[in-house]
Formats: sequence, structure tokens, C-alpha cells
Amino acid sequence: MGVAANINDTSQASPLERLAALVEDDMKAANQAIIERMHSPVSLIPQLAGHIIASGGKRLRPMLTLASARLCGYGAGPDEQRHVLLSACIEFIHTATLLHDDVVDESDLRRGSASANAIWGNKASVLVGDFLFTRSFELMVGDGDLEVLRILSKGSSVLAEGEVLQLVTANDTDTTEAAYLEVIEAKTAELFAAAAELGPAIAKRPKEEQTAMRAYGQNLGIAFQLIDDVLDFSAKQETMGKAVGDDFREGKITLPIVLAFARGTGEEREFWRRTLEDLDQNDDDLARAMELLTKHNALSDTVDRARHYGKLATDAMAVFPDSPIKAAMVDVVDFVVDRAY
Amino acid sequence: MGVAANINDTSQASPLERLAALVEDDMKAANQAIIERMHSPVSLIPQLAGHIIASGGKRLRPMLTLASARLCGYGAGPDEQRHVLLSACIEFIHTATLLHDDVVDESDLRRGSASANAIWGNKASVLVGDFLFTRSFELMVGDGDLEVLRILSKGSSVLAEGEVLQLVTANDTDTTEAAYLEVIEAKTAELFAAAAELGPAIAKRPKEEQTAMRAYGQNLGIAFQLIDDVLDFSAKQETMGKAVGDDFREGKITLPIVLAFARGTGEEREFWRRTLEDLDQNDDDLARAMELLTKHNALSDTVDRARHYGKLATDAMAVFPDSPIKAAMVDVVDFVVDRAY
Repeated sequence: MGVAANINDTSQASPLERLAALVEDDMKAANQAIIERMHSPVSLIPQLAGHIIASGGKRLRPMLTLASARLCGYGAGPDEQRHVLLSACIEFIHTATLLHDDVVDESDLRRGSASANAIWGNKASVLVGDFLFTRSFELMVGDGDLEVLRILSKGSSVLAEGEVLQLVTANDTDTTEAAYLEVIEAKTAELFAAAAELGPAIAKRPKEEQTAMRAYGQNLGIAFQLIDDVLDFSAKQETMGKAVGDDFREGKITLPIVLAFARGTGEEREFWRRTLEDLDQNDDDLARAMELLTKHNALSDTVDRARHYGKLATDAMAVFPDSPIKAAMVDVVDFVVDRAY
Repeated sequence: MGVAANINDTSQASPLERLAALVEDDMKAANQAIIERMHSPVSLIPQLAGHIIASGGKRLRPMLTLASARLCGYGAGPDEQRHVLLSACIEFIHTATLLHDDVVDESDLRRGSASANAIWGNKASVLVGDFLFTRSFELMVGDGDLEVLRILSKGSSVLAEGEVLQLVTANDTDTTEAAYLEVIEAKTAELFAAAAELGPAIAKRPKEEQTAMRAYGQNLGIAFQLIDDVLDFSAKQETMGKAVGDDFREGKITLPIVLAFARGTGEEREFWRRTLEDLDQNDDDLARAMELLTKHNALSDTVDRARHYGKLATDAMAVFPDSPIKAAMVDVVDFVVDRAY
């Protein structure tokens, strides 16, 4: 996992590391379940899926399921393992979409390593992604709770719809802030929301707590995506194995771009259209883009928007009594937003 | 649908048309459900999905669900609509795999029309395929029966695994008959089996009937695929909107090839390796392939194999009492095998 060098020394740990430490045993069990359940006699499947799953993701989404279950008092009993298998299910859905995203984006890199499609080809990535989708459905059917099935099937469907919506709005500089939010609510925040909602659902807690956890996950997911968008233009990005300006070079329309375009002059809009719609870019264009983003406060305002959603996530936690895990989940929100600095 | 010009005149109708006539009202309701449930505000989704769903498939798999339900006495009651929605679910799974197959095979044509990926691109086909997968899961979760969910999630997972298996064994002339059967049992026959098993499952019939319907579907599916393989080398193919030798040009290893390769001389095996593994083909090679297939009785023996599986399908029907729908389902088996002539 690599989220903490020494997971027991929490004095210098980030909020994410502290949350990881609180669900450490569950996460070990989840990682074990992920490896076991992606097994197939067709060896390409565990090879390819193992490559992407092992490539150093933060396991943020499955961690949300584990943390929300513990927050709601589920997971301590000897037979209480449903959150572990469901967090594996969440990771499979996420991994399937990463595999298909990389095919759609024609990415050669994923978290600084060669992407699965770069190694095994697009065909393998499409079909192994499909396998992980179907395996995730087998896992949730194995859980057998119709409420859980409703959350996850709806979540997967909204996510898939969001991916198509992103495709049809790609490279369109006329995208509004509202339209962009609609995309990221579906393609990113919905899976965060579903992952968090699972905890109170399996703990059979009142509907109010399920709604609260869903709001926490959804707003955290929006904040997370907005900060990811900002990081693409930040030197901090390089420490995460991604090059600065990857989104820009692919012509991706993210909130910083939406803001700078809306606030830009006619000449500036021509620049954005040439570079992002026509993908006609030269060596100086990334520097020029950074200049315009700074001029219009597009990056700092995107962080402010993220902070707004972060506050909604934090407020949603109010219905839960104080506990170490609640405190860590609240702190994770600030941590996600403060990643930008 | 176009399976019958005048569906009420059954005197000249094929067995498939007779079966279609027996479930005509259910199929109309299923087609309606398919159109309603593929709706999305993201207009690319119904556009692309509508294109492939409307492109003249025989609806064989959803018809199996409708027929097996009726065979088991389900569907006549005023509230008995589960078979209709589940047949739509089967069609969505099938359509999702067709979309991804066309991306993987780089096909420009599907049933004689431009394939979805040729019109909207690979990216759209991948993502709309994902959407149809997830929508199918929403549909089955809406049904809410855990036995149904088990059949369909297991079926989807085996299908997806079979697609990966087919990819890793593609263009390998050393494929054995057993290995090839393993591929088609997973990628084709499993969905036939699941579609047929749904009928007795929702009719709450004894396990014995569920097992029998599953065997019927699975063996019919194997026979169907083997005859498809034969048809690729038959002039009859052209009446179905596909060119003769499509599989050959793509280097697909099908049972006729497996048999001809196994029975071939060293020189002949060199020919198959050059044309199918290296994909180094010239104008005379398809004629040469046909010559070798004929010399080794590879096409007629594949039809014999299909007939064997057809008999297993027919025998599986023995547990059901005689009825018009049983008779039509039995006749459909022969019809599927006799398509080769």
C-alpha cells in the first residue's frame, strides 16, 4: 500500500495515514480479498488486473467503505466481514473504469508506471475491465442484501453514464461550470458516495445516517476531483508520478479551464480553442496556459470551490457521535483539499 | 424484428418464426422495455445502443427467456412481467459484449451495417457498452430475486472470462478442440444457458427443470456457435449481411480450422500458420482454405459436432410435458443446426 512508512507512528502521519491506520486490519483483509477474487485460470486476468491494482493507488474508495462501516459500529464482530468484501467490490468497479479510461484516453502511463493498455494492448484492457465489472457484481450478489445491491448497481450505472457524458463534452471549451459538475458528480463522486453509503447500510443504521454518509462521500468525491484538476497544473503533481499538464495536452476541459475561459478575452478564448479543441499545441502553450490560469485566479478559485464541497462533506458528519474514526474522516476532507499546496 | 413476414400464417414459417409467434406479445413488451430502459439524458447512449439493438438481430437470447418462462407456466398472469424485464436484461448483456467485441475485432461491419465503432468510434463503443452492462445489473437488481441475480451475475462473469480466454488463444493454430470448446462454452453458450434457466427460476419450478433448461440453453448455444463458424465459409453467409471468410481474414481460430489443422500435412499447417498466425494472406488464400476444409471434411464434421450438441439440447427437454412451446423449442434446435445448408 505504501500509505505509511510506519503505520503505528501516527505523530507525523497525514490524516489519510491516520485513517488508514484505524482500518489497517480491515484493509489487509480487503487486499487479500482483492487478490483472491480477481483470480482466474485465464492467467492474463490476474496478471493485468494485478498490475493496475498493485500500482500504488491510495485505495481511497475501499477505505471509505471500511471507515464508514466502522464509524457505524460494524466490523468488530467475528462474523462481520461484509464490509471487507464490499470494499473489494468497490475497488474492482474503480479498477475496471481505470482500465477503460486509459483505453479511451490512449494513456501510456498510470501513476508513473506503464499503463495496462501500453503493456497488454487495448483489447486486453477492455476485456479484463469487463471481467472486473462482472466480478464486482458477483461479489455484491454474494453479499445478498438488496439494499447493498441497489446502492452498487445504481452507483455503477451513474458512473458509466458519467463516463459517456464526459466523452461527449470532451474538448468542448463551451462547457459550463454546471455541466462540468454534472460530469464529475457522476464519474467520480458517485462511487465515493456509494462506497461511503455501504457502511450504515450493512450496519442497519437509520436512513438518516445512510443519507449523511452518502453526502459525505459525494462531496468528498467532488472536492477530490477538483483538486486533482488543479494538481495537473502544479509541480506537486510530479511527486505523484504524473507530468504537469497531462490534462492540458489531452485537451481535457476541467474546472480551472472552464473558469479561465469564461473570464478570458476573445484572444484568450481563441488560444483555449486552438490548444484544447483543435489540439494544436506548441512548446510554449503550457506556459501560456499557466499564465492565463494565474491571471484569472482559476486555480485558486477551483481550490475554493473544492473547499466549499469539503465543508459540505464535513457538515454531513454531524449526525455521528464523536469517535477517533469520525475525527479522522473529518480531517481527511481538509487533507484532500490541502493536497493542492 | 422481421423474423416473420406474416406471423400468423405459420404454415410456411420456420421453427424460429413459430417460436417467435408463440411469444409474440411478450417479445413486443420486451422490445418496449429495451427501448425504455436504454434511455438516458446523455443522447449518445440511446443513439448508439439503439443503432446496434435495431440492427436486425434475431433476439434469440431474450426469446429463450420468454419461451422458457412460458414453458414453465409463467407469464399468463396479469402481474407476471418479470420474464419481460429479464429478457431485456439478457439483451443488454449481449449488446454490451457485441459493442466490445467489435472494438476488439476492429470490425467495421455488424450484420451488414456499419458497426457502432465505425460510426461513433471505439471510445464511445467501450463506454456505452459499459453503460449497458451496468444498466443490465440495475434491471436484475430491480427484479430482486437472489436466485435470478446469482444466475445472471455468474453468467456475465463467465462470459467476460470467456472473452479474455478467446483473446489469449486468438491466432493460435495449436488450439485444441477441447480448448476451443472451453472458449465457446464461456463466451457464447453461458448466456444462452442463463437466459433459458431464468424461466424455471422465476416460475419457481423444481431444481430439476432449472438444470434441464440450463442444459438446453448451453447445448443450443454451442451448436449455434459451431454453425456460425461453418457459415463463415458458406455462400449462405452472404444472405446474412456478412462476407464469406470474415473469420479467416481476421485469423480467427474456429472448429473447422482446428480440425483441418489437426488433420493437415506439414505443408498445410505452414499455410494455416502463415495465413492465421502471421495474417500474411493473398488473394488465393481463401480459396485454398476452402479446399483444405473440404479435403478434411472439416465443415461437415463441425456440423456433425453441432448436431451432437443439438441432440443434448433436445434430450434435456424430456422433463417437460408436451406443449406447443416445447415442440417449437425442440424444432428450433434442428433449425439452428440446419442453417448450415
